[in-house]
Amino acid sequence: LARASRQEFKEISPSEFFYRNRELAGFSNPSRSLYSAVRELVENSLDACELNGILPSVQISIASAEQDRLDPRLYTLTVEDNGPGIRAEQLPSAFGKVFYGSKFVLRQSRGLFGLGGTMAILYAQITSSQPALIASCTDGETGIRVKLLIDVERNQPIVVERQAFAAGGWRGLRVTITLLGDYSRAQAKLLEYVRQTAMAAPYAELRYEDPFGKAYEFARLTEVMPPPPKEILPHPHGLDVETIRRLIRREADRPLAELLVRNLHRVGEKTARAFLAQNGFDPERRAGELSNEEAVRLFKALQSYEGFMRPDASCLSPLGEELLLLGVKRELKPEFAVACSRPPASYSGHPFIVEAAVAYGGALPPGLRLYRFANRIPLLYDEMSDVSWKVLNEGVNWTRYRLNPEMPLAVVTHICSTKVPYKTVGKEYIADQPELERELTGAIRECFRKLSAYLSRKGSLEQRVKRFELYKKYLPLLAEFSRGLARRPRAPSYRALLERLYREGGLAEQHGGGNEEDEGP
Amino acid sequence: LARASRQEFKEISPSEFFYRNRELAGFSNPSRSLYSAVRELVENSLDACELNGILPSVQISIASAEQDRLDPRLYTLTVEDNGPGIRAEQLPSAFGKVFYGSKFVLRQSRGLFGLGGTMAILYAQITSSQPALIASCTDGETGIRVKLLIDVERNQPIVVERQAFAAGGWRGLRVTITLLGDYSRAQAKLLEYVRQTAMAAPYAELRYEDPFGKAYEFARLTEVMPPPPKEILPHPHGLDVETIRRLIRREADRPLAELLVRNLHRVGEKTARAFLAQNGFDPERRAGELSNEEAVRLFKALQSYEGFMRPDASCLSPLGEELLLLGVKRELKPEFAVACSRPPASYSGHPFIVEAAVAYGGALPPGLRLYRFANRIPLLYDEMSDVSWKVLNEGVNWTRYRLNPEMPLAVVTHICSTKVPYKTVGKEYIADQPELERELTGAIRECFRKLSAYLSRKGSLEQRVKRFELYKKYLPLLAEFSRGLARRPRAPSYRALLERLYREGGLAEQHGGGNEEDEGP
Repeated sequence: LARASRQEFKEISPSEFFYRNRELAGFSNPSRSLYSAVRELVENSLDACELNGILPSVQISIASAEQDRLDPRLYTLTVEDNGPGIRAEQLPSAFGKVFYGSKFVLRQSRGLFGLGGTMAILYAQITSSQPALIASCTDGETGIRVKLLIDVERNQPIVVERQAFAAGGWRGLRVTITLLGDYSRAQAKLLEYVRQTAMAAPYAELRYEDPFGKAYEFARLTEVMPPPPKEILPHPHGLDVETIRRLIRREADRPLAELLVRNLHRVGEKTARAFLAQNGFDPERRAGELSNEEAVRLFKALQSYEGFMRPDASCLSPLGEELLLLGVKRELKPEFAVACSRPPASYSGHPFIVEAAVAYGGALPPGLRLYRFANRIPLLYDEMSDVSWKVLNEGVNWTRYRLNPEMPLAVVTHICSTKVPYKTVGKEYIADQPELERELTGAIRECFRKLSAYLSRKGSLEQRVKRFELYKKYLPLLAEFSRGLARRPRAPSYRALLERLYREGGLAEQHGGGNEEDEGP
Repeated sequence: LARASRQEFKEISPSEFFYRNRELAGFSNPSRSLYSAVRELVENSLDACELNGILPSVQISIASAEQDRLDPRLYTLTVEDNGPGIRAEQLPSAFGKVFYGSKFVLRQSRGLFGLGGTMAILYAQITSSQPALIASCTDGETGIRVKLLIDVERNQPIVVERQAFAAGGWRGLRVTITLLGDYSRAQAKLLEYVRQTAMAAPYAELRYEDPFGKAYEFARLTEVMPPPPKEILPHPHGLDVETIRRLIRREADRPLAELLVRNLHRVGEKTARAFLAQNGFDPERRAGELSNEEAVRLFKALQSYEGFMRPDASCLSPLGEELLLLGVKRELKPEFAVACSRPPASYSGHPFIVEAAVAYGGALPPGLRLYRFANRIPLLYDEMSDVSWKVLNEGVNWTRYRLNPEMPLAVVTHICSTKVPYKTVGKEYIADQPELERELTGAIRECFRKLSAYLSRKGSLEQRVKRFELYKKYLPLLAEFSRGLARRPRAPSYRALLERLYREGGLAEQHGGGNEEDEGP
């Protein structure tokens, strides 16, 4: 007993856990933490707007709070949106309690773990000791302003001050925190993050003001927004035993057939009964009567049954080719761009949609650039471990499209899903799920095909123009030369020949791409 | 109000969070999860033994639980140790409750987040639906056997079955779980993990039985164990505002001077008073009277005050040069090996000790291999991002030691600290903290210097032997040639010359390393 006593056990709160292990949520050092704080608050804002069908306007500003110090030093970060706001009753917990949030449902969203906002406030508090200032208004009339700290040991919000205010039509959320940051190191990534976020959300208005007072504005390019993502039930192929056991416990009195229909994605009465019958379960049996072994058997049967409908992707919210192209054209200013949206697909019961765009020339520098997005979040790290990189390097036969990575080329990929298969914790790159790889390959190939056709049209036109120019220049000389040689008084007529070449080369119908000054002979 | 209603908030339990985000704790896919489960249980066992001064004996076995299936399939994993055991009252929570553990103190330990064991059981439960079987005995007399499930939604253990048994002298802990794994993919890493764990713990006895029944045994090489790590108070330079605020709240009635002495590492009465006086705080003032601003000022003053003693590293438990060499020699079987333990150092208030070893030749293949350990855990991933890699590539001038990375060379580094500065969540590589980099550079340079001296001793001896062999061979021929040329009857005597060369080359005193057949002329 004495021996065992050196191991003392105790329990800690979720806040305490993340306070001790803040690097788990991306708050590892002052540079990365500043980046993470911006990212978490901006993504919360965009998610809230889009979910509620509001065209997002998001303002980000970072200002030094310690002018007389060098980095790392305190910064004041404010993120304001025109979203639905958060109601006064929920506001303190939404930002002051770990594991309390609105993202614990099956739905396409940027949010990673549903704890980003709280983590930003927690990190700010432990580095600056200053409360977060949050203003929220849900109705445009009366808003609420709150000064908030987190009781880390108890995982509870502490409202230091609370005050109502007349919102005068303003609706939305504004969060201000003071935190230790290293702007000089975070600068490049921050700007790239805002730029790429704007690329994937051309219907949003973004404004980013840096600590030197310089403002970067990304105007709204369109009022058209993708439909808001919808919450769905889990698909039978995406379940684990824990979910089954939980359903059984929660609806112990329900007949099995009904349990499946009510709780699973796209399982109708008929499918449920067919499935149960084939696997030897009585559809009328109460769920609570299943033994543990039977629950496991049910799980295995659900996993392998082929008769279920594939997950429905109508819950997803892809950008669509048009919006994707809008963003790409503004940010990259290419000579030519093409986009492609693949039909919905699924892996392990999770629906997903792949979109891609390829841009060429114009303001693009030589060399291939890859822009990756998942649920509209730009992924800025670990490019070479990502499935998109793999597809570009292994899945696509470049020579077939007469393309090569030294050309001024940008490839943009966007994967949206209720569950993006991130490969690791950092959630910066995506696993090479075979289904995903197949769709990505298809999307990129289609874009490459179109770019290739454009380039070959452009190329062959250029070639024909060049050839015609050659004829135009040398035929008269040849004719004159022949005349001299033959000692004839008149050169042979080459004009009809030139005209025929012009017509047959299709130069008469072509506009653009070629040299506009070329005219018929 | 209607608009805000699409964001519904709810709270989830810590178990639920990690059930949904299990990749955060290393349980991402069947291959990695099998590896993580082994690792978590083995590290718990070793930590428990070492903390209690028990020479560890740990048995690991993995057996297929689904003979008729291919990977991924169910495996049964058992890890048994001869540690102190866990008392019956604590057993269910220790393994069935997230954020309940013995590692939430400031002490050198392998444990990462104090949730590894529970995560292994949670992952097993959701993939196999089978309870964990845990046997524990703390006194060698009466043990307890428990079948355990986790109520994920409530973060509570469910004891399915509980039974006392006569232990007959057995003391320790045995955990058996059935989990979905991919052994064929995990195989190489698992074996490497066990091998390297044995390298860093030559005082432990490890046995690893793979699913094919093949057993790998690592015998105990010594009964000498490093002293158990000790728990320490936080150092004033390693504090954040949150800790200060917490101390103040907890000991509101205590005078400031006393608060500091009781709660901080190596702060005595005299130091506390000097510090408070210099920073304008009354030492007799009650802590609870401090305003928020004063608490922040106290924090900043503590951070920057130079008068505190450096953190004491006696709480740490390095391996020591001897134990490190023992493990290295057994695993790598080199021709030559040398180890170096650096004096204690600290970064941001956290004490640490760096140890290194360099091995050369023998069974080592050509090319540099780097073995990294932190608190005796082998780090198997992301080598090139690690500070040790950086030091080897940038911090050490190889040519100066006449070494190069194509030689049959192994470098082993071990960092022990109450807080290992892991760079990311995966905790597989270590940040390039300047203090750490300096100590690592020092340790590796010292080892390189010794290896270089050995090689140059060996090399120059070889060279001299070679030169002498040359003289021995050609001097008689030269003498004979000169005799013929000079038409003398007798060749000049070269024997005295050879003898002098032999003596002056130091070949008479040398033993080993050179060619043993060489003898005097």
